[in-house]
Amino acid sequence: MRPYVIINAAMSADGKLATRERKQTKISGPDDFLRVDTLRAESDAVMVGIGTVLSDDPSLRLKSEEYAAVRKAGGKDPHPMRVVIDSMARMPADGDMFKKGLGRVVIFVSEKAPKERCDALKEKATVISAGADSVDLVIVLDELAKLGVQKLMVEGGATLLWSFLSKELFDEIRIYIGALIIGGKDAPTFADGAGFTDPAEFTRLSLKNIEKIDDGVLLTWIKKV
Amino acid sequence: MRPYVIINAAMSADGKLATRERKQTKISGPDDFLRVDTLRAESDAVMVGIGTVLSDDPSLRLKSEEYAAVRKAGGKDPHPMRVVIDSMARMPADGDMFKKGLGRVVIFVSEKAPKERCDALKEKATVISAGADSVDLVIVLDELAKLGVQKLMVEGGATLLWSFLSKELFDEIRIYIGALIIGGKDAPTFADGAGFTDPAEFTRLSLKNIEKIDDGVLLTWIKKV
Ligand SMILES: NC(=O)c1ccc[n+]([C@@H]2O[C@H](COP(=O)([O-])OP(=O)(O)OC[C@H]3O[C@@H](n4cnc5c(N)ncnc54)[C@H](OP(=O)(O)O)[C@@H]3O)[C@@H](O)[C@H]2O)c1
Ligand SMILES: NC(=O)c1ccc[n+]([C@@H]2O[C@H](COP(=O)([O-])OP(=O)(O)OC[C@H]3O[C@@H](n4cnc5c(N)ncnc54)[C@H](OP(=O)(O)O)[C@@H]3O)[C@@H](O)[C@H]2O)c1
Repeated sequence: MRPYVIINAAMSADGKLATRERKQTKISGPDDFLRVDTLRAESDAVMVGIGTVLSDDPSLRLKSEEYAAVRKAGGKDPHPMRVVIDSMARMPADGDMFKKGLGRVVIFVSEKAPKERCDALKEKATVISAGADSVDLVIVLDELAKLGVQKLMVEGGATLLWSFLSKELFDEIRIYIGALIIGGKDAPTFADGAGFTDPAEFTRLSLKNIEKIDDGVLLTWIKKV
Repeated sequence: MRPYVIINAAMSADGKLATRERKQTKISGPDDFLRVDTLRAESDAVMVGIGTVLSDDPSLRLKSEEYAAVRKAGGKDPHPMRVVIDSMARMPADGDMFKKGLGRVVIFVSEKAPKERCDALKEKATVISAGADSVDLVIVLDELAKLGVQKLMVEGGATLLWSFLSKELFDEIRIYIGALIIGGKDAPTFADGAGFTDPAEFTRLSLKNIEKIDDGVLLTWIKKV
């Protein structure tokens, strides 16, 4: 059984994850931050693509120490497992994810990843080869299930989300839509990648929930029922 | 007084107006089609950019003959004025907008537009020069007001919407979000163009209304209050 996959990200009213400079951009507010932290706390693992690591250097830790304490009291690691999708093992060894006390990091690489970089990362993280040229997400989900991950939160970015969305490898999509316009034909969107051309191929959704949060709105979609 | 400007367009759940091939893409359903037709019927003019004309060749006519009849009975033209933003006068003279009985077409060009193309278009439309290299939307709104337009609907596409949004030349933004993923880093989004880089420049909005229509949701935004 593959993990239950929740895709969660915030976009501007015009569909952008960040500015065209790909700098982390504040799109939501305090209530949504708390919602995201709660979702992280309930997840066994949180995942990002290497593009997001290189532009934002996120720790993906829980911001709430209380949540971390509750997890620990329940016999879990204080922070959920952090997972990076990184074909060429470009992950910087001094990234914020490797800060002390945050727990396990798992990096999925491809067979093309240089051995010396994988070896260096192995000192700080679990490195798993999954896929020939780039990382194969079906193998990833399978491996995560073997590691005990039942609930996975995929946080972005644009290219990784496209892969999950286009292959229908998700159970829920939660899109927070912020009250702002970022614009830009080169800004990352909620789903970049190649994109579909044939409407028969579009990933079809059903709207499960609408919730006003801060100045914006959270839409929850599931696969078309 | 400039016209009251309503920006209205449909995007996929991931913020795309169409596929990367820029082909017109069905994003909404019958109830939303009726909503859009109603909004057109209530508008004095509907506007698109030349990019949309070249890819979709829209007539921008009212689909409902009843609406057209009601307008006519009220002393108006049966269809709202159709307006195209077209710096180089690239508008094809055999486009669907010029079909018989649809009424007035106004084409805004720049001073760079070749005279012979403007002259050819003048046989079918009102051609107004507004701006040096590309069309200046402030002049456009001013000219439309002089032509009696009090309510203007801007239908797209991605590049024209960016201009209206980034210059805050709007009163309302109505975004229909459809239950599908299109994807694609090169697909047109709700706001393309250059995009903002500095958060201090972002166009800030307030959420005015949320309405479920067909399988998706209509968000109405206004300028931040
Ligand atoms: N607003 C939000 O909620 C949010 C959340 C996260 C990120 N972001 C933003 O998103 C932007 C980064 O997005 P991004 O598209 O550049 O990077 P990304 O999606 O984080 O990472 C994409 C990279 O992952 C690697 N990859 C390996 N296998 C893959 C597969 N099967 N499918 C997809 N990718 C695979 C590829 O690089 P290799 O070939 O080198 O492996 C690919 O270029 C940043 O601007 C960040 O701020 C925003
Ligand atoms: N889903 C929807 O509701 C919807 C609605 C409409 C369109 N669309 C889609 O949008 C796509 C077309 O978008 P697009 O971005 O290619 O074209 P567009 O926005 O329709 O037109 C842009 C063009 O207008 C001209 N222009 C002149 N002055 C301008 C100004 N001040 N600001 C902006 N543009 C100015 C420019 O060309 P010149 O320099 O030659 O003048 C510019 O390239 C198509 O795929 C279409 O299907 C979708």
